[in-house]
Amino acid sequence: MRDRILEYLKKTDSYISGEELSRHLKVSRAAVWKHIQELRLSGYEIVAVPHLGYHLTACPDKLLPQEISFGLETKSFGKKIYYYDTIGSTMDAAMEAGLKGALEGTVIIAETQTKGRGRLARHWLSPKYKGIYFSLILRPKLLPQETPRLTLLSAVAVCEAIKEVSRLDVNIKWPNDILINEKKLGGILTELSAETDEVRFIVIGIGINVNTDKTQALPHATSLKEENGETISRAALVKAILKRLEINYQIFKKQGFHPIIDKWRHFSSTLGSRIKVTCQKEHIEGEAIDIDMDGGLLVRKDSGFIEKVMAGDVVKLG
Amino acid sequence: MRDRILEYLKKTDSYISGEELSRHLKVSRAAVWKHIQELRLSGYEIVAVPHLGYHLTACPDKLLPQEISFGLETKSFGKKIYYYDTIGSTMDAAMEAGLKGALEGTVIIAETQTKGRGRLARHWLSPKYKGIYFSLILRPKLLPQETPRLTLLSAVAVCEAIKEVSRLDVNIKWPNDILINEKKLGGILTELSAETDEVRFIVIGIGINVNTDKTQALPHATSLKEENGETISRAALVKAILKRLEINYQIFKKQGFHPIIDKWRHFSSTLGSRIKVTCQKEHIEGEAIDIDMDGGLLVRKDSGFIEKVMAGDVVKLG
Repeated sequence: MRDRILEYLKKTDSYISGEELSRHLKVSRAAVWKHIQELRLSGYEIVAVPHLGYHLTACPDKLLPQEISFGLETKSFGKKIYYYDTIGSTMDAAMEAGLKGALEGTVIIAETQTKGRGRLARHWLSPKYKGIYFSLILRPKLLPQETPRLTLLSAVAVCEAIKEVSRLDVNIKWPNDILINEKKLGGILTELSAETDEVRFIVIGIGINVNTDKTQALPHATSLKEENGETISRAALVKAILKRLEINYQIFKKQGFHPIIDKWRHFSSTLGSRIKVTCQKEHIEGEAIDIDMDGGLLVRKDSGFIEKVMAGDVVKLG
Repeated sequence: MRDRILEYLKKTDSYISGEELSRHLKVSRAAVWKHIQELRLSGYEIVAVPHLGYHLTACPDKLLPQEISFGLETKSFGKKIYYYDTIGSTMDAAMEAGLKGALEGTVIIAETQTKGRGRLARHWLSPKYKGIYFSLILRPKLLPQETPRLTLLSAVAVCEAIKEVSRLDVNIKWPNDILINEKKLGGILTELSAETDEVRFIVIGIGINVNTDKTQALPHATSLKEENGETISRAALVKAILKRLEINYQIFKKQGFHPIIDKWRHFSSTLGSRIKVTCQKEHIEGEAIDIDMDGGLLVRKDSGFIEKVMAGDVVKLG
C-alpha cells in the first residue's frame, strides 16, 4: 500500500488530496496519513497543505526497492530486491539466498558493505550512500568453466548503462575492471555454486563509485561524479544496469556468446596494448590480441607464441 | 566429559568402578552417573554391577561423532563432525557451513536424508541407519574446471576403504558411481563454491549402501551386506573412507594428479569397454580408452576420432 501511495504521489505533478488517495486505494484517510508518515520517515519529503492535499517534493537518495522498481524496464531482473542499509557483503547474502532457491533476477543491494570484496577476496571500499553495491542471482545452463563469459557480459552491460546515464566514455580492463581515463571506476565479481558438470547458480556482483568523493576513494580510483562534475542518480543507474544486463543476457541465451564478445571488444581498453599479466606468481608479457570464447585473454609473446590467460592482473606497458 | 567416560569404558575390557572414573576424570561420582545415563539414552548398553562398576556391552549402531572419532587415523578430516539424525541433504548443510567458513576436513553426516540427491539433482535414497551419507568440506587451491579431479580421487578413496573393510571387489563407473558386480553400491557428488578463477571450497558428498536390504534399494542397486552376506560396521567404514580420502588428498597436493589417475585406472570398470555416453541429449558411442588430466573420459569412436567427454551417463554395450 505504501508503494502504491508513493506511485500516485510520483505520477501527480501537483497536489493530490487524502480523499482522492483514499478513494483510489480503497483505504481510510487515516490509513493514508499513516503511510505518508512512514514515507517521510524513510526520507521522502511530502508537503501537506489543507484543502489541497499531499505533494512529493523530494525522494531520499537511497536505493530503496520502491525507488528501483519505479520505472524499471525489465521482465525479471530486479523484480525481487533485498535491501540493506548496512551489510557484510552482498555477495555472501546472495550466495545464501541462492542456496535457499532464490529466483533468477533476484537482487541484493546495500547502501554500504562492511566486508565488501573484489576478485580473489581483495577488500572493496563501499562508502555509504555514495556508490552502487549489488549482487544479482542468475541460473543459466552453463558448465562451471563457462562462467567467465558472464563477467564479460556484465562488464558490457555496466558500460552501456553508464554511457546511457552519464554520456561518459567508459571502458573495460580485462577481466573485470571498469575504467574511466585509465582510472578504476568499478568492478565485476562473478561467483558460482555448481556441481562439477552443471552450474547451479551464479552471483554477479557489481560495485561502482558513483558520487564518491576523491577523499573516499583509493588513489588510482575515480567516480562518475569526479569525472562528470555532477551528482548522478544512483537509482537511475541501477535501473539502467539491470535493463542492460537483462538485454545482454537474453542475447547470450538466444544468440550465444559472439554478439557479447563483439560488444566487449568495442569497450576494451586492453586489446591492442602491450601488457604484462600477473597470474599467481607467473608473469606473461606481450600484446593483448583478443579474447576467446571462454573469456580468456590471448597474449602474443615476443617469441611469437600466443598464450591464453584465464585470470590475472593486467598492467599496460609503455 | 561424556566422550572421555566413553573412551575409558571402551578401553577397559572388564568393569571400571564409578570411583575410579571419578578419580581419573576429576568429577563427582554423581556426575559420572549422570553421564552414564545419558550414554544409555543415546544407545550405549552399559551394565552396572554393585562393587564392580560399569561395563560397556554394546555401542549403538549410529554414526555419532564420538563413534567416528574413536580410533580415527586422520590429521584433519573428520576432526569436526556435525551429526544429524535426519536432514534434508548433507550437501546443502555443507554448502552453508562452507559459506560460513567451516574448516577443511569438516564433515556433515546424517542417519537419513529426506532430500538426498545424486548428480544433476537426481533423487538419492537414504534409508535410515542403513547407509553412509556424508559430506566433506575441502579448500584446495584449484580452478573451478579442475574440480572433477576430486570426484575421481574420492572414488578411489571409497574403493580402497571398502576393500579394506569388506575385502569385496569394488570398482568405479566413470564419472562417479561405485559398483560391485556391475550393480550400484554408491556414488560421489562434488559441488563447488567458487570465483571464476579460484575455488573457494568444495563439498564431496558420499553415499554408500552398507547394510541396506534388497527391498529398500532400487532394482539395479546393491549393498555391502547383500554382497557380503553380513552386516558391516558403518562407523568403521566411515573411518576408513576418511583416512583414505586424507591420504589421497595429500598425495594429490604433493605429487599432483598422476598417482591418483593411476589408482583410478586400476579400479575402473569403464576403461577398455565399448560404451555409450549420454550427455544432455547427445550420444557418443565407442571404446572408452582413458581418462585425461582433467578427469574427462576419452572415447575412440568408430570413425577413429577420439572425443573427450567431461560429463554424462555411461552404459556398457555388448
